[in-house]
Amino acid sequence: MSVPGGDDAETPVGEVPPAPGTDYEFLRGALDEAGADAFVHVGDRFDDDLRYLTRFSGPDRDYAFVFAGGTGTLCAPALFGEQAVREFPGDRVRTEALSDPAGVRAAAVLDEAIDGSGTVLVPRRLPHDAAVYLEDAGYDLVSTDAVDRARRRKSDDELACLRFTQRAALRGMARAETVLAEAVPDGDVLRWESAPLTTERLRREVNAAIAAAGARDAGNSVVGAGPTCADLHFTGDDDVAPGETVLLDLSPRGPHGYYGDVTRTFVVGEDGWGRRAYVAVESAREAALERVEAGTPAHRVHEEAAAELAAFGFEVDSTERGFTHGVGHGVGVSLHEGPSLRADDPLEAGHVVTIEPGVYDPERGGVRLEDLVVVTDDGHEILAEYPFSSTPRER
Amino acid sequence: MSVPGGDDAETPVGEVPPAPGTDYEFLRGALDEAGADAFVHVGDRFDDDLRYLTRFSGPDRDYAFVFAGGTGTLCAPALFGEQAVREFPGDRVRTEALSDPAGVRAAAVLDEAIDGSGTVLVPRRLPHDAAVYLEDAGYDLVSTDAVDRARRRKSDDELACLRFTQRAALRGMARAETVLAEAVPDGDVLRWESAPLTTERLRREVNAAIAAAGARDAGNSVVGAGPTCADLHFTGDDDVAPGETVLLDLSPRGPHGYYGDVTRTFVVGEDGWGRRAYVAVESAREAALERVEAGTPAHRVHEEAAAELAAFGFEVDSTERGFTHGVGHGVGVSLHEGPSLRADDPLEAGHVVTIEPGVYDPERGGVRLEDLVVVTDDGHEILAEYPFSSTPRER
Repeated sequence: MSVPGGDDAETPVGEVPPAPGTDYEFLRGALDEAGADAFVHVGDRFDDDLRYLTRFSGPDRDYAFVFAGGTGTLCAPALFGEQAVREFPGDRVRTEALSDPAGVRAAAVLDEAIDGSGTVLVPRRLPHDAAVYLEDAGYDLVSTDAVDRARRRKSDDELACLRFTQRAALRGMARAETVLAEAVPDGDVLRWESAPLTTERLRREVNAAIAAAGARDAGNSVVGAGPTCADLHFTGDDDVAPGETVLLDLSPRGPHGYYGDVTRTFVVGEDGWGRRAYVAVESAREAALERVEAGTPAHRVHEEAAAELAAFGFEVDSTERGFTHGVGHGVGVSLHEGPSLRADDPLEAGHVVTIEPGVYDPERGGVRLEDLVVVTDDGHEILAEYPFSSTPRER
Repeated sequence: MSVPGGDDAETPVGEVPPAPGTDYEFLRGALDEAGADAFVHVGDRFDDDLRYLTRFSGPDRDYAFVFAGGTGTLCAPALFGEQAVREFPGDRVRTEALSDPAGVRAAAVLDEAIDGSGTVLVPRRLPHDAAVYLEDAGYDLVSTDAVDRARRRKSDDELACLRFTQRAALRGMARAETVLAEAVPDGDVLRWESAPLTTERLRREVNAAIAAAGARDAGNSVVGAGPTCADLHFTGDDDVAPGETVLLDLSPRGPHGYYGDVTRTFVVGEDGWGRRAYVAVESAREAALERVEAGTPAHRVHEEAAAELAAFGFEVDSTERGFTHGVGHGVGVSLHEGPSLRADDPLEAGHVVTIEPGVYDPERGGVRLEDLVVVTDDGHEILAEYPFSSTPRER
C-alpha cells in the first residue's frame, strides 16, 4: 500500500545486511594527536564503543581491544573464540588465558607491542579494575573521546543496518496502528479482541512484529496512553481509553547492534487537546527537518522546533509540560550517541539523528512524532518513512 | 496439554510480577566488615549490579547509587526523574544537576553524608572516570564483590520474575518445536511454509513468540543446525537439513531484568549421531540434577555430568569436541552470574542455576539440554518444565 507522506510501512525489511567494518585510521590520528603509544578498551557485550571497535557481539563478561604498533587485537574469552574470529575485522584474535582479567590480557598485548611503558589512550568508561591493572603494569592512561567522535559519521554499511532496523520498527508501528484501528470504544475503555486494550497488550503485539521482522525490541518499546504519555519512558501497564493520545516510541536493536527509533501518536475517537497538539508537533517537525543539513549548527534544529511549538502556544522551557525534551540525538550502535541537537557543533554529512518534537500535559496526554534521518551535504534523507495520521488505520 | 516430564510448555506466563525490592542489609554488613564508610556504584542501564541495587531501568547514560549513613540514594538524570521515583525502592532520588557526570554527583552525596573523606567500597567495574572523580574528591576506593555475592540468593519475588521469563522462553521453544514438526524434508533441505527452513527463519518465529508472551529475546536466541550447533553462540543464518541436530538455546530477558535460559535439541528425520548424543546428554542431565542441593560443592555437579558423558564415550576435556563447556552458571539480572558450577563453594538454597550438559562434533552437530533450577535445602525445583523429545512435536 502506498501512502502519501511515507511508503516504507510496507517495504520488506530485506536481507540482513553484512557487518560493517571499522576503519582504525581514526585511532592512528588520535594517537598522533595525543603523542600516545597505544589505545585500549575493556568492556563486555553491553559496551557500545567496544562493539563498534570489534564488531564482536561477545559475552557478558569483560574482553579487551588493543590497538598498538598499527595492529588491532581482540582478546576474547576462549569459549567465544569461534565467534570472535568470525566477527572481528581487525588483525588478531587472542583467546588464551581464560581466567585472566581482561585488563591483564590487554597489558600483556601492550608489553609485546610497546615494551612495558608508554602513554595509553582509553575511553572514560574503561572499568576501574582494568585501569588499575594497566597502571600497575607501568602505563600512563589518558582519556580520549576519539571513539565517540568516530562513531558519529556513518558508513554506507552502517546506514544499511540502521535502515533495516528502522524498517523492522515500522513493522511494529504498523501492527500497533492496526490494533488501534480495530479497537472499539465501549464506555470508557477500548476493547480489542474481546478484552480491554492496555499498553502492555499493545506492546506485546508490537514487539512480536518487530521480532518477526528480524530485530528485537531491546526493552525500549515505550507505549503510553493519556497521562502516561507525558512520562517520557513509560514501559508499564495502563488502560487505553477512547479519546486519549496513544504514544508509541519504538527503539529496537537490529543486525550488528544498530538501533532504530520511531515515534507516532494516535487518538481513537475525539480529543480536542490531542488533535491540536498533533498539528503543532507536525508543524514543528517540518520546521526542524528544514534545518537539517551539513553545516547547520546542531542547536538550531532544536530552536526551530521550539519556536514553532511556542507559536502554537505550548511551553518550551519547562520540564513538566509542553516541549520538555530535546528535539533529537544521534543513533548508531547506541540508542543515544553523538551528535546532540543541543550542541553548537555543525551537523556533518553521515550523521544519523532523530527528529522528535513533542508536547505533553501531565493531566491529559502527550504527542510526539519521530523519524530517523541521515544528514547529507544539501539536506537529509529519512531512513524509512511512515505515514502521519492521528486517526489509526489498518496497515 | 499435559506432557510426561514437563507441563509448563502450555502454562500461561501469568501476570507480570511486581518489582523485587533490594534489602541493603548486605551493604551494611560489607561496610562493617571492611571498616568502610560508604558504598558507591556508577553505571548505565546495562550495568546489572546497578539494576539490582536500584531496580531502576534507567537510561543509556551513567547514573549513580550511593549508600552512606544508612541511606540509599539514587542520582538520576532529570529526564528520567518520574521513572526513577516510580522504580527506586530506596530512600531518596536526586535528579538535580543534569549535566554533572554521575561520579561528581555521587561525590556530592558523599560530601553531605560523610563529610569529605573516608573509605568507599566500589564494584570492580566502576567506570574509570567515576573513580577519578571520587578519588579527586578525597575518598579512598576499595573494591568489593558484596553485590555479586548478595545477588546469588534469590528472594521469592525474584523467583517469580525468573519463572515468568522462563515460561516466556518455553513459549518460544514450543513455537520452534511446532515449526520443526511441520517442516517437510525435500531432498537435502527442510521446507516450511513453502520455503527452505533456516536458522534465521526459526529464530524470528521463536522471538515473536517470546515477545508475545511479554519478554524479549535480548539477542540471545542461539539457533544452530548441524555443524553450527558446535559453535556455542551461533546467531547467524544456516540452512536446516533433514537428519541434522537443531539446537535452540533461548535466554530472554523479562520483567525487572530477570533472564530465562532453556535449551532443547531436535532432529527431523534420521541421525544416528544425534540420537546417540541425545541419550547421553539426557543421562548426564539426570546425573547432574541429582547432585543439585544445598551443601553440595558446586563443581561436583559439573563432574557428575562429565563422568556420565565420558561413560558414553564422549570427550570431556577438549574445547573442540565432546563436552566443551561447564555444566551451568547462575542466572538473575545477569544471564551469567554466580555461582559457577566449576567452583568449590557449596550450593545454597535460593541459588538459581542452569543445568546444561551438551556434546558437540564440529563436523556433525551438537546436542545440549538445559533447564533453570532453584537450589533448595533438600534438592532443587525446575523453574518451568519443558518436555524432552528429540523428535519435534506440535505444541
